[in-house]
Amino acid sequence: MRVAVVGGGAAGMATASRVKRLLRDKAEVVVFERDRWISFALCGTPYYVGFRVKHLEDLLHYPLSEFTEKRGIRVRLSTEVVEIDVGNKRLYFQEKNGNSGWYEYDYLVLATGARPRIPGEWREFLDYENVFTLHSLDDAERIRSYIARNHVKHVVLVGDGYISYELAENIRQLGRAVTIVGKHEYPLSKAFDEDMKDPIISALESNGVQLRLGQPAKTFEVEGEKVRRAVLDNGDSIEADAFILAPGIAPETRLAEKAGIKIGETGAIWVNEYLQTNYAEVYAVGDSVETTDLVTGKRIWAPLAPVANKMGFVAGSNIAGAKVRFPGVVRTNVTSAFGVFLASTGLTEREAVGAGYEAVAAILEANTKARYVGSGRKIVLKVIADAKTGRLLGAQAIGDETAFWRINIVATLLMKKATVWDLFFDDIGYMPLTNPVWDPLIIAARLLMRRLGLSPPKV
Amino acid sequence: MRVAVVGGGAAGMATASRVKRLLRDKAEVVVFERDRWISFALCGTPYYVGFRVKHLEDLLHYPLSEFTEKRGIRVRLSTEVVEIDVGNKRLYFQEKNGNSGWYEYDYLVLATGARPRIPGEWREFLDYENVFTLHSLDDAERIRSYIARNHVKHVVLVGDGYISYELAENIRQLGRAVTIVGKHEYPLSKAFDEDMKDPIISALESNGVQLRLGQPAKTFEVEGEKVRRAVLDNGDSIEADAFILAPGIAPETRLAEKAGIKIGETGAIWVNEYLQTNYAEVYAVGDSVETTDLVTGKRIWAPLAPVANKMGFVAGSNIAGAKVRFPGVVRTNVTSAFGVFLASTGLTEREAVGAGYEAVAAILEANTKARYVGSGRKIVLKVIADAKTGRLLGAQAIGDETAFWRINIVATLLMKKATVWDLFFDDIGYMPLTNPVWDPLIIAARLLMRRLGLSPPKV
Repeated sequence: MRVAVVGGGAAGMATASRVKRLLRDKAEVVVFERDRWISFALCGTPYYVGFRVKHLEDLLHYPLSEFTEKRGIRVRLSTEVVEIDVGNKRLYFQEKNGNSGWYEYDYLVLATGARPRIPGEWREFLDYENVFTLHSLDDAERIRSYIARNHVKHVVLVGDGYISYELAENIRQLGRAVTIVGKHEYPLSKAFDEDMKDPIISALESNGVQLRLGQPAKTFEVEGEKVRRAVLDNGDSIEADAFILAPGIAPETRLAEKAGIKIGETGAIWVNEYLQTNYAEVYAVGDSVETTDLVTGKRIWAPLAPVANKMGFVAGSNIAGAKVRFPGVVRTNVTSAFGVFLASTGLTEREAVGAGYEAVAAILEANTKARYVGSGRKIVLKVIADAKTGRLLGAQAIGDETAFWRINIVATLLMKKATVWDLFFDDIGYMPLTNPVWDPLIIAARLLMRRLGLSPPKV
Repeated sequence: MRVAVVGGGAAGMATASRVKRLLRDKAEVVVFERDRWISFALCGTPYYVGFRVKHLEDLLHYPLSEFTEKRGIRVRLSTEVVEIDVGNKRLYFQEKNGNSGWYEYDYLVLATGARPRIPGEWREFLDYENVFTLHSLDDAERIRSYIARNHVKHVVLVGDGYISYELAENIRQLGRAVTIVGKHEYPLSKAFDEDMKDPIISALESNGVQLRLGQPAKTFEVEGEKVRRAVLDNGDSIEADAFILAPGIAPETRLAEKAGIKIGETGAIWVNEYLQTNYAEVYAVGDSVETTDLVTGKRIWAPLAPVANKMGFVAGSNIAGAKVRFPGVVRTNVTSAFGVFLASTGLTEREAVGAGYEAVAAILEANTKARYVGSGRKIVLKVIADAKTGRLLGAQAIGDETAFWRINIVATLLMKKATVWDLFFDDIGYMPLTNPVWDPLIIAARLLMRRLGLSPPKV
């Protein structure tokens, strides 16, 4: 059996590894990777920029030899798949050194990932040496060495999402000035409702990050060999020594589309619950595919690393003959900067209203530990529920690392379609050094019970 | 309506507060408290001994005036209820100053808590000034001032449960030698299986705590006005300047028993899901009552502070006319010393086998964060499941504070009767500074899936 995997990121390598683990010598597994790295931790790239991670190789989950020698996977680096001939079950690849050819497969796995969503009119500026995106290990290397070698005093981060949030911390730690330019009223507005914006803004501003929000960057001004200014929609311009463009990402579907593989309503590759595309022998996994939102039951694009890894496990198992279903996600995510963790799961209140729910929310600020031990920090917590049924719909938390863990508890409840009353009675442990006896999560449930009643509605 | 509450701890005050909140002037609520404190945080007493908490008053969740003036509750301190006349709905109380009388109630709430389970033959030693229990704020005060004023160099903690574990840290922080004497092979053996014992022992020993385990203390030797030695079952004796007896606790049911209120199979007060005893107008809440173990479906005594507080909320709501069910618990608990957190939920493997399950377990040591950011710590995690159905039965974790939070996630799954496959697909978030992309919890599920198969069994 011949299995071709397009893309050597987390999802691709997880799939390849799983097939080999189950089938061993009964399967030939070839991974085609356009770049020179596989099994790379893209999520770690901001920490490479900030020198918290010293070597690029540290960002590989495993060295190449683990896959090639130990797991018996064939890895073709610097090899791009440029065409898939689904009818004949073969793909056409081109190596960077000029070689090219067809590879015939029994199973194909698309793990093409995502790509920065750079507007067409900005593309030309990417040719300048002081303009970057951060979407590969090589990108991280370019940014880090440029900052080190070019007396960069001020970096503009174009985009108000999690990449800018994490880069802001890391570039500040290098002692450089940082400005975030974003079109939304506050950073991370996709995952956080407006009533959560103050602690987000404060985490950045209190650590010296300049914010220019509510104004999309429109274009850039060149001086000599470099881009010198970002120009905002209102005409203002911001001068800087380097510019990192992080306006968002999009699923990398071009290869699939060209091959006639079905694209879903979200714009990502459509797959069934076994992670098969509309061609049974073609699987797709990771940041290029859509899945099911277990809160709404609708299709969703959720490009997140743990999801990608689990999809690889599922697809690999199924290629090897199992029948494992990937159930879907609740979109739990987390980012952090300057010790402030921002985590969310499920729907925001805005999304819940948009999806037609009669959303109610509880928002509170609370101490993370028993008051009297004196070591707690504040977190802000918001929990959203459906007024009709009491079902939990989502949650957001900002504060110390426990904000993240508390959100994981709500995520777990969302996975089980649990209610506000389930949250109230959830048997979360307690001791003074870990949390208050009435944990903020339980208080949030109590606040929601004021609106929804003390018991579940009778069906 | 007249509501009498016996016991001013967390459960009693939560009940009283809830009734007043819902009924306001329509209810007279009187709390009878034997001692001089109400709404006290017993869990904080070890930190008072160690001076992390400075004032005894800091251990009150609220000052007395919050209850009496703001919430309109009548509080009778230093007043013991010595008899309940259930047939005539009245109780007899005695004040420490000699006054006594009957109080007629419409509803009675027993919140009598638990008491140290001191063997009869040890009672006489409690009369010595250097022998203590730790089960009240006054106990904490006595211990702290005795250590400070009497050149105490060495304290023996008799008992290998969580009180000794937490006291060990606090007394070591005072610069005194500490020995734990316990009859089990390792501390906290009720909540942790034997394959988890090494990190527990190491947390204590590496911080200078002497362990004398597998040998129950048998008696004590007196010299002059003081107890001078603890004598072990094998005849060994340990000399020390102070002795704290913490061999465990038992539900305080004596008043209830005498009144003919039903005691359950666990030895604690029986209540139905509305927290009513066998007399509909008599409720019981907190550490003196039993509840349902949601893993086994059996009755269990689970004296834990968050449970007590929620029971108070439920009983108070029901007295005020609601019909709220208390569903039961999964016995999530946590303790910590020297920065090592020990958390568990559900059944241990030993308990699972004892309860007739075909138990399988995964145990692993893992880093708490992405390897490359360098700030993670090790945790040891064990997850137990039923081989027949794949249902999760329990989990234990030891390590940094995230051990506690990971256990809360399993607890949440236990509350929903979830399986190993639910754990694998649980949408736990990820970023390098919070956890590895394959969180230890997910790896535990993967290990269990090797034994149980990749998908749930078909029903």
